[in-house]
Amino acid sequence: MRVSPSIEEIGARAKAAARVIGGLSPAIKSALLESMADHVDAARAQILAANSADMELADAEGISGALLDRLRLTEARIDAIVAGLGKVAGLADPVGVVTKGWRMDNGVDVKRVRVPLGVVAVIYEARPNVTADAAGLCVKAGNAVLLRGSSYALRSNRAIGDALRAALVARDLPVDTVQVLDDTSREGATALMQATGWVDLLVPRGGQGLISAVAAEAKVPFVIDGAGNCHVYVDAAADLGKAEAITLNAKVQRPGVCNAAETLLVHRDVAAEFIPKVAAALRGEGVELRGDEAARALDGDMAPASNVDWATEFLDLVMAVKVVDGIGEAIEHIRRYGTGHTEVIVTEDLAAADAFVGGVDAAVTAVNVSSRFTDGEEFGYGAEIGISTQKLHVRGPMGLEALTCERYVLTGSGQVR
Amino acid sequence: MRVSPSIEEIGARAKAAARVIGGLSPAIKSALLESMADHVDAARAQILAANSADMELADAEGISGALLDRLRLTEARIDAIVAGLGKVAGLADPVGVVTKGWRMDNGVDVKRVRVPLGVVAVIYEARPNVTADAAGLCVKAGNAVLLRGSSYALRSNRAIGDALRAALVARDLPVDTVQVLDDTSREGATALMQATGWVDLLVPRGGQGLISAVAAEAKVPFVIDGAGNCHVYVDAAADLGKAEAITLNAKVQRPGVCNAAETLLVHRDVAAEFIPKVAAALRGEGVELRGDEAARALDGDMAPASNVDWATEFLDLVMAVKVVDGIGEAIEHIRRYGTGHTEVIVTEDLAAADAFVGGVDAAVTAVNVSSRFTDGEEFGYGAEIGISTQKLHVRGPMGLEALTCERYVLTGSGQVR
Repeated sequence: MRVSPSIEEIGARAKAAARVIGGLSPAIKSALLESMADHVDAARAQILAANSADMELADAEGISGALLDRLRLTEARIDAIVAGLGKVAGLADPVGVVTKGWRMDNGVDVKRVRVPLGVVAVIYEARPNVTADAAGLCVKAGNAVLLRGSSYALRSNRAIGDALRAALVARDLPVDTVQVLDDTSREGATALMQATGWVDLLVPRGGQGLISAVAAEAKVPFVIDGAGNCHVYVDAAADLGKAEAITLNAKVQRPGVCNAAETLLVHRDVAAEFIPKVAAALRGEGVELRGDEAARALDGDMAPASNVDWATEFLDLVMAVKVVDGIGEAIEHIRRYGTGHTEVIVTEDLAAADAFVGGVDAAVTAVNVSSRFTDGEEFGYGAEIGISTQKLHVRGPMGLEALTCERYVLTGSGQVR
Repeated sequence: MRVSPSIEEIGARAKAAARVIGGLSPAIKSALLESMADHVDAARAQILAANSADMELADAEGISGALLDRLRLTEARIDAIVAGLGKVAGLADPVGVVTKGWRMDNGVDVKRVRVPLGVVAVIYEARPNVTADAAGLCVKAGNAVLLRGSSYALRSNRAIGDALRAALVARDLPVDTVQVLDDTSREGATALMQATGWVDLLVPRGGQGLISAVAAEAKVPFVIDGAGNCHVYVDAAADLGKAEAITLNAKVQRPGVCNAAETLLVHRDVAAEFIPKVAAALRGEGVELRGDEAARALDGDMAPASNVDWATEFLDLVMAVKVVDGIGEAIEHIRRYGTGHTEVIVTEDLAAADAFVGGVDAAVTAVNVSSRFTDGEEFGYGAEIGISTQKLHVRGPMGLEALTCERYVLTGSGQVR
């Protein structure tokens, strides 16, 4: 049994590593990421063995199918991890970019420069691929990373972490740039959330329980990768063909993810035409529908929707349906129940689109586009560490830039005030 | 006696107002700010009378001279408030700016757009001018603002707030865009810090006690306008004339502000030449010096510096002086004692400048420039709501942009994944 070091010890090691990693050139970081990919590739036997042990224990504890599936690693999934690290290696380096620059009247040159944050901590669930994905992004952005995964995945995470660390050692770089935390207890997570001075950014990736714990307990800076209670609003001026395609895609293409749609809002003027058609299509894909009174009047097979349904991120083949009197009611509904993730309007009316975009407060508002495009890959960020549903620092898909900050450098020749 | 409404009531009013203010055009916001300036100008008799009452009470409570001076309003200070609002009126509007935009392969257009945060809360000390300055910046950036000042300034703040609100009423805009909070108790401040869902950004402007309270208790998003324990490092390759001018300016031009320098670090190679000269110049301006052993060996009149001195933001005509063996020791000292505000190197050696800028982690690093330039006005931001010493959201001088966030708008023609 390993003795877990204290969070201060872990933090101090990470800080020291971050100073070295933060100063590396883009070329050296790319080469390091490539090497990490190679080391994971070479360690696949050990990683798969560790994962088998995790799976056996989880199975013995009666863990459910969906969770087991997330926990499972296969040759193909390791291929994906290796490819992912290789892809991040090739992304444009965010560090050192001058985002703004000007000269003061007195001749002082001002640059606003992107720099690494320092130490990034990630708390996540039983998905071992996150160990490599998050580490790759954090390191590419010049940060050290603390990885606190689920106890169910501890062996898998350690095996992946060992491979990543071997790549650091092979290149004579600080091994503690990547640390997989042994302590997977609730207390350990709380200690990490409160490791003021050691953690520059905490990214919690998990369900509502984790998000609530972070909101209540965290003392370190964090970005909430929160719930996506996303809506599709079908306006009176919608092209109903597009509306049907978007609704179907947003609901069923991958129902278990945060950018899937949960509630369909339909303008009263098109409800009689649209709801029966879309309901049949959704049911054809296995979706269970829960409607308000007006929707049920048009489709007798819908179960009645409760206020709880409006507020629920189903993450499943379930959709709530509501008929609204107009765009104002749609906006009010979204303001009340939305989580600030992604909100969609389907309309051919420019004024309606503008009113929706102006009235809704979300990381992403989408006009005639499926909510499924709120995604780091789709945005061209190459990968994502999460999707921010808060307002400070960054909103929406978080790529490499979100793992940096901007500071100022002044250069002069003796200027004083 | 007014009955203080609950924080939920205040918050709900602010949220409702923010929706209207956030959607106004730049021209309407400019006109509103001009009108606020006019209303303050017209209400100067009431404001000065309220301030006299505040001053009398504070005086009776035995408040000290410096605090009394901050609290005092004069015709000239009201002129400055009026001019400040007029200046903010004319600043470029940050809202609606597209900070990035591209087209996905599938034809979806992506825009990253600057939008208001919503409701900004400011907790500040007994400086009534902050009431107008902060309100002006928040409103110009499209936000509603909650102003929680000191109990000593309550009458002055209310009088200024009444003038600002009269301008809103006159233009038929929501009066609760600006709210001066009646509850100036410690509990009231804590309630504001924990008004989750109502406050989108909290800016604490005050001393270490307030900052610590926010770090410990705040549940709403905040940006720390923290201490400035700023250093001037005089390198072996410094032009000692520039070094003396910069040290003097950074220390004495306005010692009570956060961008004043507190500690002088001098490279051993130039210490014998530089320290006696700069010490004489600083003493000529009334500065008390506290040195380490090596500095005192060169200047017998220095008091010995303790570890407490290295960590202290004197905000006064006091400076600590330390001789260092090289740039590495200077960086380590700053990493240990600095507060991430502004760090200055004086050198003619490009490699030394690069090493310093790369090694120091601060909102602003300055090469051959006084630390006093870390300032929203000097940066061309027109005004500032504070200077961020944290890494997330923004670092350094916070102008209008810091009171906004960026969200995405996708526009397509039916795209699905």
